Amino acid sequence: MIRVGINGYGTIGRRVANAVQLQRDMKVVGIVKTRPDYVARVASSRFSIFVPDESYLKAFDDAGIKVKGVLSDLIRMSDVVVDATPEGQGKKNTPMYRTAGVKAVFQGGEEAGVADVSFNAYSCFDSAVGKSSARVVSCNTTGLARSLHALHSEFGVEHVDGTIIRRATDPNDHKKGPINALEPSLKIPSHHAPDLRTVLPVDIDTVAIKAPTTLMHIHVLNVTLKKEVQQSDVISAFSSRRRIMLVDGKDGVSSTAQVMDLARELGRDRSDMYELVIWRDAVRVSGRRVSYIQAVHQESDVVPENVDAIRALMGSMERDASIDATDSSLNIGGMKIYG
Amino acid sequence: MIRVGINGYGTIGRRVANAVQLQRDMKVVGIVKTRPDYVARVASSRFSIFVPDESYLKAFDDAGIKVKGVLSDLIRMSDVVVDATPEGQGKKNTPMYRTAGVKAVFQGGEEAGVADVSFNAYSCFDSAVGKSSARVVSCNTTGLARSLHALHSEFGVEHVDGTIIRRATDPNDHKKGPINALEPSLKIPSHHAPDLRTVLPVDIDTVAIKAPTTLMHIHVLNVTLKKEVQQSDVISAFSSRRRIMLVDGKDGVSSTAQVMDLARELGRDRSDMYELVIWRDAVRVSGRRVSYIQAVHQESDVVPENVDAIRALMGSMERDASIDATDSSLNIGGMKIYG
Amino acid sequence: MIRVGINGYGTIGRRVANAVQLQRDMKVVGIVKTRPDYVARVASSRFSIFVPDESYLKAFDDAGIKVKGVLSDLIRMSDVVVDATPEGQGKKNTPMYRTAGVKAVFQGGEEAGVADVSFNAYSCFDSAVGKSSARVVSCNTTGLARSLHALHSEFGVEHVDGTIIRRATDPNDHKKGPINALEPSLKIPSHHAPDLRTVLPVDIDTVAIKAPTTLMHIHVLNVTLKKEVQQSDVISAFSSRRRIMLVDGKDGVSSTAQVMDLARELGRDRSDMYELVIWRDAVRVSGRRVSYIQAVHQESDVVPENVDAIRALMGSMERDASIDATDSSLNIGGMKIYG
Amino acid sequence: MIRVGINGYGTIGRRVANAVQLQRDMKVVGIVKTRPDYVARVASSRFSIFVPDESYLKAFDDAGIKVKGVLSDLIRMSDVVVDATPEGQGKKNTPMYRTAGVKAVFQGGEEAGVADVSFNAYSCFDSAVGKSSARVVSCNTTGLARSLHALHSEFGVEHVDGTIIRRATDPNDHKKGPINALEPSLKIPSHHAPDLRTVLPVDIDTVAIKAPTTLMHIHVLNVTLKKEVQQSDVISAFSSRRRIMLVDGKDGVSSTAQVMDLARELGRDRSDMYELVIWRDAVRVSGRRVSYIQAVHQESDVVPENVDAIRALMGSMERDASIDATDSSLNIGGMKIYG
Repeated sequence: MIRVGINGYGTIGRRVANAVQLQRDMKVVGIVKTRPDYVARVASSRFSIFVPDESYLKAFDDAGIKVKGVLSDLIRMSDVVVDATPEGQGKKNTPMYRTAGVKAVFQGGEEAGVADVSFNAYSCFDSAVGKSSARVVSCNTTGLARSLHALHSEFGVEHVDGTIIRRATDPNDHKKGPINALEPSLKIPSHHAPDLRTVLPVDIDTVAIKAPTTLMHIHVLNVTLKKEVQQSDVISAFSSRRRIMLVDGKDGVSSTAQVMDLARELGRDRSDMYELVIWRDAVRVSGRRVSYIQAVHQESDVVPENVDAIRALMGSMERDASIDATDSSLNIGGMKIYG
Repeated sequence: MIRVGINGYGTIGRRVANAVQLQRDMKVVGIVKTRPDYVARVASSRFSIFVPDESYLKAFDDAGIKVKGVLSDLIRMSDVVVDATPEGQGKKNTPMYRTAGVKAVFQGGEEAGVADVSFNAYSCFDSAVGKSSARVVSCNTTGLARSLHALHSEFGVEHVDGTIIRRATDPNDHKKGPINALEPSLKIPSHHAPDLRTVLPVDIDTVAIKAPTTLMHIHVLNVTLKKEVQQSDVISAFSSRRRIMLVDGKDGVSSTAQVMDLARELGRDRSDMYELVIWRDAVRVSGRRVSYIQAVHQESDVVPENVDAIRALMGSMERDASIDATDSSLNIGGMKIYG
Repeated sequence: MIRVGINGYGTIGRRVANAVQLQRDMKVVGIVKTRPDYVARVASSRFSIFVPDESYLKAFDDAGIKVKGVLSDLIRMSDVVVDATPEGQGKKNTPMYRTAGVKAVFQGGEEAGVADVSFNAYSCFDSAVGKSSARVVSCNTTGLARSLHALHSEFGVEHVDGTIIRRATDPNDHKKGPINALEPSLKIPSHHAPDLRTVLPVDIDTVAIKAPTTLMHIHVLNVTLKKEVQQSDVISAFSSRRRIMLVDGKDGVSSTAQVMDLARELGRDRSDMYELVIWRDAVRVSGRRVSYIQAVHQESDVVPENVDAIRALMGSMERDASIDATDSSLNIGGMKIYG
Repeated sequence: MIRVGINGYGTIGRRVANAVQLQRDMKVVGIVKTRPDYVARVASSRFSIFVPDESYLKAFDDAGIKVKGVLSDLIRMSDVVVDATPEGQGKKNTPMYRTAGVKAVFQGGEEAGVADVSFNAYSCFDSAVGKSSARVVSCNTTGLARSLHALHSEFGVEHVDGTIIRRATDPNDHKKGPINALEPSLKIPSHHAPDLRTVLPVDIDTVAIKAPTTLMHIHVLNVTLKKEVQQSDVISAFSSRRRIMLVDGKDGVSSTAQVMDLARELGRDRSDMYELVIWRDAVRVSGRRVSYIQAVHQESDVVPENVDAIRALMGSMERDASIDATDSSLNIGGMKIYG
């Protein structure tokens, strides 16, 4: 039984906690919260609550939320800590994990140097086996890795131009905009291109535009392969991966609104869509050129990757067995309704 | 075991189907879908699928979705039909139900005359007992009935001025706007005021403004009571009802974004919030004047009411027992985290 | 010729500068900008540019924008300074104006105590005559003052309940949200009620809800008058004021989108709508109760008030003559197309 | 003096009417409106109003808007008709224009076959000279033609991959969505690629995604040139065209919100941005590969093209003289503030 501590219980941390709890070979030792808000209140009925240090105790006590200990206690009780703290905090936490000799999984908001390796289950599970730490790449990079690894391993990828239309903020935030504008990232290529190369060695350029929506990111990908293919080859490569879900406009999936509605219909925890979603009707192939449109659920696509990263670090399971176990527990591919 | 047919599997129908299935004294005989889309595909793994008539069979067959029969078959197999068809269709369906001698529950999109009585579990359960049909009032009217019934039964309501800021469309729709405007309903009072009086006899005026959001409606209510009260009296009246959830800004619930996030944390089916949500910090009392702000989850607040309406029509349970059974099955009030 | 300095050239400052320049009895001596951005670049072709102090000179020089002097220079050259600096900065600037003996007009973001009097042209022009400083109340309060002064002076206002649906940010901002939520102000009454009483002595409560739109605020007002009236009386009271524009749904003005489009059609500077807009079809009267819906263009409704405030402080014109001059220069009421 | 009739006074028609009125060699004979709404009311103070046929007269009469005649009258009085009727209506109008022997300018909503030639002033002015009719390509295609013609004529374009993030609807509409979703066009390539080839012979693929904003479209373009270039070459090619405006993030132009704000600052009619806007800081060049981000103001970028199309059809001015005259009248490039 791998004992997992969850440091940070925001958008990613809470979802990873739930997923870890569903694994037969893992259990959540506790979660770290910094604020005694409604999220902490609900969490306290499922998990032991820890706080970063003693200075946080009074606020939780005032709010009537029971605290089991502080972060250093949690680290001592854990085999692996999943660090899901805000961007940049992970790096500050590394000495603590190293000193305690606990393995650590970081998130994609951290720079690559934070961990021994960057991680994506399909493209580089083995490189993390037995390491002390791994960084699960960000939601967008995970999405890129999934579809491009499928293409790269089957056909070879020569070059990719990607346009990323980013959701501006998450559904549970009300402070960030824009309300009515499109905001390009003026740094070209955007950070996604170099980030992808930490887990998949392909030649890629990316441009990112922020749009006023909260649901999902959309990627438009123009890929030049190393050999000519047919549309059916590409669709077949995608559909062979459980963490890619093919959808169709003719099934009523016209926008990210319906993709998220589909997730609700599937009865997922927090109505999440763990899979990368690709529109089958929009896969276009012309010789070596492939273009397609994919949607990334920023809140949850990295969740199964975090679970696999834990197993990779522990060296407790092979890649395919881990992916099978994770997907089975989260019902990924369990209800095969498309393609 | 009450046999329930669900005619219409849109926003409301699919949620009522799920809720009915969770009752010990009911079962879903089948659901009627008109389009073989992703919703039908997922539903087919849980429920028997029916179509309105034979003309729909081919489309479902082409889509590979198995159909068990047509609407008239479903009616024959049901004790009660929950009609959740699009606005106005319910009225057209009434002769069919009447001829078949099946009881029917309609939704608030229909006019009051569609059924023997209009229905809200708190305010008028008994008037529906043994009737042939009932109309569960709309999401907004249900929200108004819940809080105003609490005030009316405790203190007497003399007059209400309500401003309803409406979500413009549901999360799974991408066609309707506005994207960046506020649209007043120029008919004053809006239809909500007369609709409320079908289930609660209070003097009320309402104005409605449509806003570019999909999550929830918000109501601002200015109520004149028949006697002077304290703030604590009002909060106490609200907190005595399980279908009202009190939340606090200091718990981090600052907007409808966090209310819906709370629903996700509570693990609700489809991340729904069945309760009417009232901000405790914003309840203001001055003599006989009370003002407060409430949020209505348009997709789901009528779901428990539909379940109770079924029992009322069947005469199979008393009001309080039915409300208890429904709330228990849907975990309403089961995790008492506020107030 | 009144010499006017504009300290702050953001949303309000730039509009007041334009309006002042259009007056026959005023001229803009210069405007103060803090950043050498695109706004400064365009402004430099129309106005002399000043900066707060010498530390800003290099940045403007680097950007190639010519600077004429610093704030203290501008103050020395001005009879009146319009302070349109960010909220709270006005208060810090007061000693500077007082020491220099220059009159000052502040904006509604400042607290009432910042100036000798609070100002609205209709309701309290005379109280500012000859004073050293005046605060033009905020966009929302100005809107409330316009319609409620019309009612109060004609019929007497006993009580007002107002719900303010606020645009979340201005059209030229892309950072603030919410993108998809409604956010109530949990402080009840909101600050608008006490603020209105600084310019109009009526009993009022207000509740404010923030909505994801950039165009305009909407107010829903429930007013109890001191005597019974007819709908035509109320419409007549509103239409007698040039700074109130009556619109009709049947003319195609269904939402704030069309109100702003109308402003564009009218050829206004920056497509502004200086008038308070009231939907004629939605004015409802029942005995002493009046309810109506009004829309406030937050970027510009205070512009004519600033112009009048300058004249009031200077004692250079009577109330009605000033309002006439201002309105004529800005084409307010110049094209009488409604009511 | 070219006599111009404007058939259709929606988003494009009203802007073309204004622009035509500003030309020294043209005058607006009249405009055709179908509804007596607020737009018609304002228009009636500037232009003679015509209606499609006699059946419309009563509605305008009831609304108190004076009508000068019907469409056939207007056609008889015109040398050229600018047809800005809703998509698809232009085609139905062609027999009328042909029979009357009047020249006609159509809009990009019509299919290419509607007119003798498709039109963009930079790329194919001469092909329209003396023809009976021309179709000004759509806002997006016009934007593509402007920047790609600059690159193609200077360096030769081998291939283009374009991603078009479309504003979902115009600012004066409140009915269309999405409110909170991204909607891909599942037809790949989108119609923009073949449409561009009607005015510029380049090899291009395009994908379009609809986003919940009203202000502008954004295009991300990945271009392979026929020869290697430097970034400065590309910027120089763009800045040599008056109808391209280069902006910089460091000037505060971070999103489409500030681009439209800049248009307001420039004092444009209806706050329009006639120029194609390209972010100078985001032009990236690597060998023969160029990528850049451009923003298109869908309401107005075709306005100068319509003016030029009129002159081309009439054969009354050479290409460069016409572009100079149009740009001068609309103040395009008149205030050179960037690049």
